[in-house]
Amino acid sequence: MAEQIEFDQAHQTLHEITQALENGRFVHVRRQLQDMEPEDIAILLEASPRKSREVLWQLTDPEDYGEILDELAEDVKDALVSKMAPEKLAEVTEGMDTDDVAYVLRSLPDDLSREVLSQMDSADRLRVEMALSYPEDTAGGIMNTDVITIRSDVDVDVVLRYLRMKGELPELTDALYVVDSSNQLIGHLSLSVLLTTQPDVPVAEVMEDADEAIRVDTKDSDVASLFERRNWISAPVVDENQVLVGRITIDDVVDIIREDAEHSMMSMAGMDDDEDTFAPVFKSARKRSIWLGANVLAALAAASVSNMFESTLEQMASIAVLMTIVPSMGGVAGNQTVALVIRGLALGHIGNSNKKELLYKEAAIGLLNGILWALLIGAIVMLWKGNLMLGAIISAAMLTNLFVAGIAGVTIPIILKKMNIDPALAGGMALTTVTDVVGLSAFLGLATFLIH
Amino acid sequence: MAEQIEFDQAHQTLHEITQALENGRFVHVRRQLQDMEPEDIAILLEASPRKSREVLWQLTDPEDYGEILDELAEDVKDALVSKMAPEKLAEVTEGMDTDDVAYVLRSLPDDLSREVLSQMDSADRLRVEMALSYPEDTAGGIMNTDVITIRSDVDVDVVLRYLRMKGELPELTDALYVVDSSNQLIGHLSLSVLLTTQPDVPVAEVMEDADEAIRVDTKDSDVASLFERRNWISAPVVDENQVLVGRITIDDVVDIIREDAEHSMMSMAGMDDDEDTFAPVFKSARKRSIWLGANVLAALAAASVSNMFESTLEQMASIAVLMTIVPSMGGVAGNQTVALVIRGLALGHIGNSNKKELLYKEAAIGLLNGILWALLIGAIVMLWKGNLMLGAIISAAMLTNLFVAGIAGVTIPIILKKMNIDPALAGGMALTTVTDVVGLSAFLGLATFLIH
Repeated sequence: MAEQIEFDQAHQTLHEITQALENGRFVHVRRQLQDMEPEDIAILLEASPRKSREVLWQLTDPEDYGEILDELAEDVKDALVSKMAPEKLAEVTEGMDTDDVAYVLRSLPDDLSREVLSQMDSADRLRVEMALSYPEDTAGGIMNTDVITIRSDVDVDVVLRYLRMKGELPELTDALYVVDSSNQLIGHLSLSVLLTTQPDVPVAEVMEDADEAIRVDTKDSDVASLFERRNWISAPVVDENQVLVGRITIDDVVDIIREDAEHSMMSMAGMDDDEDTFAPVFKSARKRSIWLGANVLAALAAASVSNMFESTLEQMASIAVLMTIVPSMGGVAGNQTVALVIRGLALGHIGNSNKKELLYKEAAIGLLNGILWALLIGAIVMLWKGNLMLGAIISAAMLTNLFVAGIAGVTIPIILKKMNIDPALAGGMALTTVTDVVGLSAFLGLATFLIH
Repeated sequence: MAEQIEFDQAHQTLHEITQALENGRFVHVRRQLQDMEPEDIAILLEASPRKSREVLWQLTDPEDYGEILDELAEDVKDALVSKMAPEKLAEVTEGMDTDDVAYVLRSLPDDLSREVLSQMDSADRLRVEMALSYPEDTAGGIMNTDVITIRSDVDVDVVLRYLRMKGELPELTDALYVVDSSNQLIGHLSLSVLLTTQPDVPVAEVMEDADEAIRVDTKDSDVASLFERRNWISAPVVDENQVLVGRITIDDVVDIIREDAEHSMMSMAGMDDDEDTFAPVFKSARKRSIWLGANVLAALAAASVSNMFESTLEQMASIAVLMTIVPSMGGVAGNQTVALVIRGLALGHIGNSNKKELLYKEAAIGLLNGILWALLIGAIVMLWKGNLMLGAIISAAMLTNLFVAGIAGVTIPIILKKMNIDPALAGGMALTTVTDVVGLSAFLGLATFLIH
């Protein structure tokens, strides 16, 4: 019940704190921050314009820094971390998971990151250095090393006493890992089974086999899809010799799922998915202008097509008035297909065995909608401009362009993926260029042919 | 290790099975399906064209139907379920979680769903009917009723013996819920704590308070964001009297997170996010044509603007050739802002306290990139067309349009959200209409003014 109220008040809190900051009531803000969970402070920081963000960070209890950094979006974290002294950073990392420390260090300049490492105690440093040795986007880069291992020849009772002696389990522990004397993973014992088994049963009898351990070099998106399919909470990570090196937990996987999905959404609009909502103006403008530059080329390509038909445009201004309709419809229809294909590729639904089927289907949809909109827009143009021929021309161009849009919408993302170019990033613009060029060529070409 | 190989072979399997189906080697396919996990069969079905999908479903062991249906995307599930007899469906639901049965029944026609319910045993029916009584997109709609409850006055040892007697815990159990005699939730005892506490300690001493129970009417997206922030695996659900009614588990939350993110991505391209990759052609064409219809209006609005300047276009065909560039750049720049704002709104980062700040920032980025591209494109046009005036006109129009794009990119999604219209769905097209109209008006208006 408390939670429900808290939820409705989330924005209220943000508003209050912003106002208190503006009025310089720092003591009040500090007290409010002390009452908040680290995850909620993270959201508050992300939702704050940059100036207030820095003040808020100063007012936050440094004890919470580690947990807050864990939760922050990359750009926001980088900005805050870049202003902290190395000793301070080393202190903060003490409360953090190994994978999260590695994640923060990766974003620092090399010399700063080395300095932070040198300030850490040697056991922690060793663990973080190991994590840093794996690429960021692999199982090794997201795993933790806080695993509890047991042997298969002991009884459940021994395990229970061992756990009571330990006194605490690592966060999100749902299973203990069973290893042999060379630390090779041979199975796992879930806490559920442990709790429902009689004390005198040996572990070997109730453990499950390790047939689905994650290899340390598995790609993070593959890890996420495995977790999603298998409904795992945590999973062991092994090296090429089946030696247990760590475990991955669902909280990090949820972050990957969220980030992957956001990546598609933001990329399709030509945005960097790391971009902080309140990023510095110059930095954002520079990042975004790359995409605008690509669009200049696309727009100039379309203009060159029109340019070839300059004499036609000179003879009949109505053609110029109408010439944007066909490319616009083709772009929208084609991008519908592109979105479907990008999702299908991301979910692993599209491969060699079914891409022909998909192409036929999308071409058929293009044809169907092409006929529908060719007739409707042809009729509108005929009535508007009182010109039967102009209606016929726009109909033919529309049908052609929507058909091409369906085919290009399937082939462009698949080809881009084969070329190792992110289809979410480049697919939409490549598609629009095709539908602009085809749409303009078809409409202006037919118009020229019929005028002369 | 096995998993790694399996992963690389996922598409290989799909390819093999498709070929075996084509050659009518049904026995072989049936055997292969028997060796696969239900989750993997679900992906296979989603990735199969519709005809092979139905054959595959027939060849699948009906024992697995329940678990497979749990994992399938909505449209695919609906198609398969609509062809099953009610008795068969009732049988299949026996192995499924309550929330998943409710989910399947919701998609059936009312009479069919009643028939399936009448075939279920009475305890199951009661549970499913209760789940159906909550709206689909609330905590009640996604919760399960398989909770284990304990009292606070017993010792840990009693709990351990009780669990051993039960013999099995519900899937994804990470905590037992502590209730009083009227079933009001007073706390929870995590399995980790249970395992690391001495047997003679009373539950009351080690349990955690129930200060963050989820109310049954909480929106599913709010539930997801809570799980994500708090790193929960499961959470108790209570009614308005704090009475425990069920629990929500992370697997269902991951589905919501994935669906919400996909929804934004697909909606921005004007697609229904339920659309099956291999949906029937007519059904898809109909769904998509709604969006194309909206775009016809947008395209006609742009054409009407050009139409007002018909005499200018008549006098100078170069203007017609160049007139698509400014709207195109404005659309791309504005959609970058729209994507940022939609993500910010979804994550709860944007509210009354900071939207002015965001508006200034995006307007400033629009101005900066406006200056950059105004100068560049102005220069290109001047060189291309050898006309200083034309270069100056396109520069001025470009600067205006990119500035307007920044402002519209922030205000349109925020206004749509206030009007309870999904900004991901309508934001892009509304923005493009604005940038088309402003871009064309600015360019053609200035050209007209300078020609006369």
